[in-house]
Amino acid sequence: MNKTGKNYKATAVGDVRAKGRVELHNELGLTGSEISINELPPGFSVPFVHSHKRNEEVYIVINGKGRFYVDGDEFEVAEGSVVRVDPAGQRCIAAATDSSIRYICIQTEAKSLLQFTQTDGFISATTKPSWLK
Amino acid sequence: MNKTGKNYKATAVGDVRAKGRVELHNELGLTGSEISINELPPGFSVPFVHSHKRNEEVYIVINGKGRFYVDGDEFEVAEGSVVRVDPAGQRCIAAATDSSIRYICIQTEAKSLLQFTQTDGFISATTKPSWLK
Repeated sequence: MNKTGKNYKATAVGDVRAKGRVELHNELGLTGSEISINELPPGFSVPFVHSHKRNEEVYIVINGKGRFYVDGDEFEVAEGSVVRVDPAGQRCIAAATDSSIRYICIQTEAKSLLQFTQTDGFISATTKPSWLK
Repeated sequence: MNKTGKNYKATAVGDVRAKGRVELHNELGLTGSEISINELPPGFSVPFVHSHKRNEEVYIVINGKGRFYVDGDEFEVAEGSVVRVDPAGQRCIAAATDSSIRYICIQTEAKSLLQFTQTDGFISATTKPSWLK
């Protein structure tokens, strides 16, 4: 599935379990974020702690479980866990010893969002898909 | 799991299947994005087509399958499909007739990302989690 139009690009990430990490910024031509989809096998950790200069990060765990570290705090995360980390936060994530973990990490320029959803989106009256009456 | 520190906030989204939609901007105090986690039951569609004034959207399908519409184009999406839609794109998403679909939608200010990953992140030498030697 690869499709590109004037206002969109669609593709498929492939086997995240085999690849370990898939980065979407260049693949999709993103301009407001870098998004990665990551998988760590049981017992594995990102091998370093890092922070950011400008970017806020959001971690969304979509499969499995593990542990998260920020600024000396450690806590468990599992499918459905979501974490915002400010640029200065010193962060790390690891899979559990008995489970892999798959997570999405979204980087954005901190304080860049001006409006969203009801104040930014608007409903079209001129076009619709075949499945909407 | 609810934890808040100087540089982070962590929580859990709960049962997306039952809730239908979970929005993270206010829950996590996001400043660079609005992120929603959405689930449509089999046969259901977002009931309208919409576009945006400023925001780029990225859709990531994390479970199930369905159909996507942009500007008159229609194509199938399934777990692992990722779609960037520019602000002007007229978009809609539906579950398949025989499958639910769960997807993450990320809204960001178009053209707001200035740098990322290697140019924005840096590795800390002063702090580390208990599981890193």
